[in-house]
Amino acid sequence: MGTDRIIEKMTKNPKTPYDALLEKSKSIQTYHAILMLLHWDQETYMPPGGIQNRAEQIAQLASLIHEEKTSNSYKTLLSQLVHRKSGKLKGDIRGKAERVIIREWHKDFQRQNKLPVAFVKAFSQLTSEATQIWATAKKENNFKLFAPFLERIIQMNRKKADILGFADHPYDALLETYEPCMTSAKVTNIFEGLQKELVPLLKKITNNKAPEINFLQQHVHEDKQREIGQWIAAAMPCDADYTRLDVSSHPFSIALHPHDSRITTRFLPCNFMSNIYSVLHETGHSMYEMGLPLKHYGTPLCQAASLSVHESQSRWWETFIGHSLPFWEYFYPQLQKKIPDLLGNVPLPDFYKAIHHVVPTFIRVEADEVTYCLHVILRFEIEKALIAGKLSVHELPEAWNAKFMELFGITPPNAAQGCLQDIHWSMGDFGYFPTYALGNILAGHLFMAFEKQHPDWPKRVSSGDLAFIRSWLQENVHQWGRMYNYNEIGKKATGKSVNETAYCQYLKKKYGAIYNL
Amino acid sequence: MGTDRIIEKMTKNPKTPYDALLEKSKSIQTYHAILMLLHWDQETYMPPGGIQNRAEQIAQLASLIHEEKTSNSYKTLLSQLVHRKSGKLKGDIRGKAERVIIREWHKDFQRQNKLPVAFVKAFSQLTSEATQIWATAKKENNFKLFAPFLERIIQMNRKKADILGFADHPYDALLETYEPCMTSAKVTNIFEGLQKELVPLLKKITNNKAPEINFLQQHVHEDKQREIGQWIAAAMPCDADYTRLDVSSHPFSIALHPHDSRITTRFLPCNFMSNIYSVLHETGHSMYEMGLPLKHYGTPLCQAASLSVHESQSRWWETFIGHSLPFWEYFYPQLQKKIPDLLGNVPLPDFYKAIHHVVPTFIRVEADEVTYCLHVILRFEIEKALIAGKLSVHELPEAWNAKFMELFGITPPNAAQGCLQDIHWSMGDFGYFPTYALGNILAGHLFMAFEKQHPDWPKRVSSGDLAFIRSWLQENVHQWGRMYNYNEIGKKATGKSVNETAYCQYLKKKYGAIYNL
Repeated sequence: MGTDRIIEKMTKNPKTPYDALLEKSKSIQTYHAILMLLHWDQETYMPPGGIQNRAEQIAQLASLIHEEKTSNSYKTLLSQLVHRKSGKLKGDIRGKAERVIIREWHKDFQRQNKLPVAFVKAFSQLTSEATQIWATAKKENNFKLFAPFLERIIQMNRKKADILGFADHPYDALLETYEPCMTSAKVTNIFEGLQKELVPLLKKITNNKAPEINFLQQHVHEDKQREIGQWIAAAMPCDADYTRLDVSSHPFSIALHPHDSRITTRFLPCNFMSNIYSVLHETGHSMYEMGLPLKHYGTPLCQAASLSVHESQSRWWETFIGHSLPFWEYFYPQLQKKIPDLLGNVPLPDFYKAIHHVVPTFIRVEADEVTYCLHVILRFEIEKALIAGKLSVHELPEAWNAKFMELFGITPPNAAQGCLQDIHWSMGDFGYFPTYALGNILAGHLFMAFEKQHPDWPKRVSSGDLAFIRSWLQENVHQWGRMYNYNEIGKKATGKSVNETAYCQYLKKKYGAIYNL
Repeated sequence: MGTDRIIEKMTKNPKTPYDALLEKSKSIQTYHAILMLLHWDQETYMPPGGIQNRAEQIAQLASLIHEEKTSNSYKTLLSQLVHRKSGKLKGDIRGKAERVIIREWHKDFQRQNKLPVAFVKAFSQLTSEATQIWATAKKENNFKLFAPFLERIIQMNRKKADILGFADHPYDALLETYEPCMTSAKVTNIFEGLQKELVPLLKKITNNKAPEINFLQQHVHEDKQREIGQWIAAAMPCDADYTRLDVSSHPFSIALHPHDSRITTRFLPCNFMSNIYSVLHETGHSMYEMGLPLKHYGTPLCQAASLSVHESQSRWWETFIGHSLPFWEYFYPQLQKKIPDLLGNVPLPDFYKAIHHVVPTFIRVEADEVTYCLHVILRFEIEKALIAGKLSVHELPEAWNAKFMELFGITPPNAAQGCLQDIHWSMGDFGYFPTYALGNILAGHLFMAFEKQHPDWPKRVSSGDLAFIRSWLQENVHQWGRMYNYNEIGKKATGKSVNETAYCQYLKKKYGAIYNL
């Protein structure tokens, strides 16, 4: 079989540099799909003894992919299609798709090649050690143990920003690696607007009587939770042949191909809703991957636009749909039948209010819809200040607590529940956090247009129809792949530039009704 | 992570050609492990939609492995260690392990490179088409449809034998690709002895009253079968952290690494013993892989000696142990408790006799312990004659039926149940079948020595102790990897050359007792 392909390669003389690069791009994508399977298997079914060898397998394949992406032959072919510095396209371009594909190939290549190999190696060594130190520091609630590593990570991130280049703020260069069309100025602007609305909303809600949530915290057996997870997954408007649901310690979604896009969930014994929301969230990610244009598989056009756009899709299904009253008008009676001891005597309005319980907590990953973005805003402000040198590492815990008080009105009792809680910084990831909130904001922006085009959506959803929602997302988001970026997708679907307004309005309207504000 | 490894490669200047080739060998082994995962996933959990992309992934990775194994740099390094033609080792060799590793690298390289790329491609194209035609021919019971393809496959196999080279018989060259130390003369000798014993044994048994087997053919629910499969797997003397059991349409065993060696089973609704024997058979394969010497991972010393040796390990656990009375003295009471409706009133002697039911059937894969090797002998004789040109394709169905009558005393009603039943020939695999019987023969040969060294084995097994059996196999088979071949392993463990005598004696003694012959 292998030999076939070699002969094929030998005898097939690519006519154009574009076709040759397309072949390389497809080959890299295939290796990437295999890499995804290695990760998926590691988190789901791999025998524990396989872990050491798995690390070898992943490192070797990742290294191969990097070599292929940065090879001289790749560079030579690309240089026949595009001017290295200006990014201007050369020669005949056959249509818009080809133009976009070359543009994105060029961007990827620039990004892959800007950082010197020695820098990447040093960064990787540092963060590998730092991640272990961070785990101990968090466990022992000992910020000082982690501080020197964080200091060096920040220094290297500043260096990274210098190498990558930026116009206004070094943080822009870091942000761009996760969300290509964003600058810290734009994010600051959006987040300021968000904070202005969320803080008073949170106060109003928490001044109200908290809903009864006791019935959501009862024990539900793993087998029953598995049944519920499968039931929700099967109810989603997916092609069952292209996906599957498994269990892992942290829920995730991974796609090898639009026709092989898998999700996982987990079962928390006394929080059965967590399983349901994991399935909805990960299915949102998965549907995005399934909806990418198959005919462009192996090119950037069959890749997701960005982390934030991806997050908009997961949050859409988890919150905008999965927390909506019409959704539960349809699904709640069925859920009641599955766990009658818990929900049999709980009317829908009580259940609906309970799943909208809002409470400030110290931990981001446990946060509700209203407080979640506040956690992100806090991290963004602190990251920006650390990178700019306006905040030193030893001042960090105090700055964290002060900002926490400003946003939530409470102060973390210790660093483990404060600035040590997330793994991201130890891994060197500065600029990642904002994508979590930007996803929600794009979802809110898109939802505004969706509601306008489908004013009858509550009626349809309450009768169990979800397919038309997927079609709308398919048309407005999925089909574009990387043809359009975050801002362009938002503007194209709504006619308006993406900002926080729609998302804030959605939250205020919804929680206003629930809490009679 | 990838970048790390590149730097590591750049800065680490291998001191010797041996070390450099060792690094290549390990890297190839790692790719091979990944390839195994692609196959495992395809047969177990892959969403159906993933199949087309999976074929791409497998082809690309297989091609990469082939390129690595036949690259000029591989060839250059190898030529510094060994004379290409004579196979004589050059330079300083550090100990026996290194000597054997180089010897096997050389053999593998010779094998990989002898067949011209154009030949491999043509062969692959032919067999790819032939496999599809064969499926139709079998379904429609139409031998004439498949005949012209088989004719061409035989021609190409003759060509292959010419290219690979042989001393006596062209079939030797084909046989050697599956069982390196065998010739058709040796196999003929062994199989003649086997046939001489098996045919009269079969007659004597079938002249007796057949045992009652009705209780083995009752419906057992999939959930119960899953429980039984897990129970048997857990009772095996394996490291639970290094293996797992899943379900696939055909049972198989696949190893990524000695610490990640997986098996599968299947559940036939009205044949619950099939599940148990699949688990035992595949665990036998799996334990071999787990027992290979870990310190040599990535070299031929951490690879199985051959297909026949592998089969000796699976059949050992499936038949020699798994069909033994001591085994069931321990496990039967527990099995009775799992399916009391079926087995509650069946005493152990009746169960024991039932699992030794012998009956001539047309289909190899359904055959019992006594008739199985006869199916293999038939195929071997026919393959040899076809390759030698002593039998033409159009004479095949008749020759098959005549030989079938000679061995089994019955004649297949049609080609679908006769010479069209196996997929092997359509895939181009001539020389593969003998390994099935050679595995049983080696197992019998080894079992003789095992019984001598552990005369108390029935007592130990009947109290549930299986670990000492694994230790014995570990010491006499697993630990050697490819240091010794089929014949050497057999001789080293027993002091005697491998032949069919011990296996025949085992069968005669066992079935003589069961059927009062």
